Amino acid sequence: MTALPVAAASHAAGALTDLAIILVAAKIGDEIFKRIGQPAIVGEILAGLVVGPAVLGFVEVSEIVDVFAELGVVFLLFWVGLETRLHEMREVGGAAVRVGLAGVALPFAAGLGVALALDESTETAIFVGAALSATSVGITSAVLAEAGALGSRAARTIIGAAVIDDILALILVAVAVGIAAEGGVDVVSILVALGFAGAFLAFFALGGVRLMQARPNLLHEPRFSESPLLPAVILCLALAALASEIGLATVIGAFIAGLVVAETKEQHPIEEEVEALYAFFPPFFFASIGIGLEIDVFSDPETLAILAVITVVAILTKVVGSGLGARALGPVNARIVAVGMVPRGEVGIIVAGIGAGAGVLDDQLFAVIVGMSVLTTILVPPFLGRAVAAARAQPSASSVE
Amino acid sequence: MTALPVAAASHAAGALTDLAIILVAAKIGDEIFKRIGQPAIVGEILAGLVVGPAVLGFVEVSEIVDVFAELGVVFLLFWVGLETRLHEMREVGGAAVRVGLAGVALPFAAGLGVALALDESTETAIFVGAALSATSVGITSAVLAEAGALGSRAARTIIGAAVIDDILALILVAVAVGIAAEGGVDVVSILVALGFAGAFLAFFALGGVRLMQARPNLLHEPRFSESPLLPAVILCLALAALASEIGLATVIGAFIAGLVVAETKEQHPIEEEVEALYAFFPPFFFASIGIGLEIDVFSDPETLAILAVITVVAILTKVVGSGLGARALGPVNARIVAVGMVPRGEVGIIVAGIGAGAGVLDDQLFAVIVGMSVLTTILVPPFLGRAVAAARAQPSASSVE
Repeated sequence: MTALPVAAASHAAGALTDLAIILVAAKIGDEIFKRIGQPAIVGEILAGLVVGPAVLGFVEVSEIVDVFAELGVVFLLFWVGLETRLHEMREVGGAAVRVGLAGVALPFAAGLGVALALDESTETAIFVGAALSATSVGITSAVLAEAGALGSRAARTIIGAAVIDDILALILVAVAVGIAAEGGVDVVSILVALGFAGAFLAFFALGGVRLMQARPNLLHEPRFSESPLLPAVILCLALAALASEIGLATVIGAFIAGLVVAETKEQHPIEEEVEALYAFFPPFFFASIGIGLEIDVFSDPETLAILAVITVVAILTKVVGSGLGARALGPVNARIVAVGMVPRGEVGIIVAGIGAGAGVLDDQLFAVIVGMSVLTTILVPPFLGRAVAAARAQPSASSVE
Repeated sequence: MTALPVAAASHAAGALTDLAIILVAAKIGDEIFKRIGQPAIVGEILAGLVVGPAVLGFVEVSEIVDVFAELGVVFLLFWVGLETRLHEMREVGGAAVRVGLAGVALPFAAGLGVALALDESTETAIFVGAALSATSVGITSAVLAEAGALGSRAARTIIGAAVIDDILALILVAVAVGIAAEGGVDVVSILVALGFAGAFLAFFALGGVRLMQARPNLLHEPRFSESPLLPAVILCLALAALASEIGLATVIGAFIAGLVVAETKEQHPIEEEVEALYAFFPPFFFASIGIGLEIDVFSDPETLAILAVITVVAILTKVVGSGLGARALGPVNARIVAVGMVPRGEVGIIVAGIGAGAGVLDDQLFAVIVGMSVLTTILVPPFLGRAVAAARAQPSASSVE
């Protein structure tokens, strides 16, 4: 059809094809997994694997796919923030800190130990430890939302702990990159960064909520006369971008934006409108995890063996660490928290990407960490769903509602 | 903040900043223009000009901005399709064909004449003529929607005529590129392309609607159990991509997808959910027109003079041509149609891009055609709003409702 250059001119049209293919695949994977009683998001990840370079090759990793995936996890956490009340987060604050710390310490120590046992350098071992300490709040939130347990104490503890984990992983990665680049650690930079991260959390989560409560119609002033959606979405994107600028994950900014908007009177109409964005974007996030996975690396038996060891260590240490940290919530909720903290998802993949970019992780360890992130992400949701169902069946124990 | 490589790893986060800036700017432009009683979309285009390279340089043209702009106009026309019923389109079929043909013939002849008078080659003159015959269904639809007149006979006539214009512009561009590349026209390719375009329109618009009427629950089968939004959005993206593959504009596919979905029983819930996508994406389309405009080219007096002549010719010939074609609708509606067909918007810019890419348009003529497209787009909405208001004030004439 070379006589028709109109199509060629609209070079954005090719991206529409990719987006349509990803949405179709994710929706099919979603429905198949629901029918066989498995979590929909695992179906969406595997659908990405099928249409991606690993199997059919219909869709490649591209900037567009990356941006839609990023918006997917951003709107996912914005939604989680909208569903969460700040005072509820404060209630679980102590438990979240204990879970976050214990859930980082044990996997980090184990990852460090395994990597040193494999004769890796100190900075590489720190990176492996950091990747094992990560928690994907995106994956866990989606599974909890699917199970209708997003408002439970356990869910709030997991989300709070995951935010703490993200900050700790940030420090570990900064330390490892510092050692690799300069042979030492720039403590001042790390403290400055921590200060920024703390100020950001305090100002936006606490200050933003106060502001909203003092002026509950801020999002509905005449200026923003038509729909409160755009101002809310702008706040979400802006805080996500700002969080990223100071070295935090974008999802933390999006989650805080959701928390802040949830305190306004406009929460319900906004929630209804955000629902469409929440339906549209997250499938790109889940599918992109599958699209980005290169499975042929694992044809090497040694790599496969390291992957198996690292994955088992990643699961056991996170379950034990988080479970111990969550003891105070009672055994039923502690089980949900212990299982819910396991998925590394996009956080593990990002840490691996930084390590590879800084020359600290070789191709084999990069593949292993990405593989571990995907495996923990795919394996956990069925167990998490069962833990939530078990908690529902025992209303005598501390409730999940 | 170099100690914090987490931010760098998430290279998609920079795109979030761009998207947030564009949304904020568009929303501010929107609100300012509403307050001074001018069409919001003009405010959004000028907001793009302000944050773009022409003034502040906060945002550059990029693949991401292009894709969001494309999705903006796609969801805009999907929405227009959802608001339109096929039998209503059939009622205005004859008028739309007359408006489309007359509204192409006169501007094409005038553009051809002006370019030949400027000593341009035949293929360049055909390109200028083709750019002048284009109609931006996106801009016009948005203004009509803003005025609450999307369901009127005049609006349906404009949309039908704009679809016809798009097909005619496709032929003219193919002819001009053929002459430039081979010194002749490949009639067979053009006929094949026309056949495809006709089959696409007939199969999806007519066949799709029949299918939906016969099986009104197709979008709500158990497979798609949760929300009818995703299947509807997938149909929209798929038909947009398919239209582009066969050389039509993506918006024609999106419009047809909207028409088809509108015939299902699920129209109302889908409309409510699509509303959020309709609020989120189109600002990127309008702002991107401003972001892409390079105004420093017009510091040259000769370029400015040619721009003035071409713009006046573009407006007059379209008003007269379309107005004559719409005579049968009565003077009040004919005025709406005549004014409504004037904006060239993205279609003129795409034609200019093809011409520059094929080496048929030099930098000066490229800038002139883009400038003319933006000027007709910015100048028309106030007049169109007034024409709609005038029609409302005279209910004795054929109604706009």
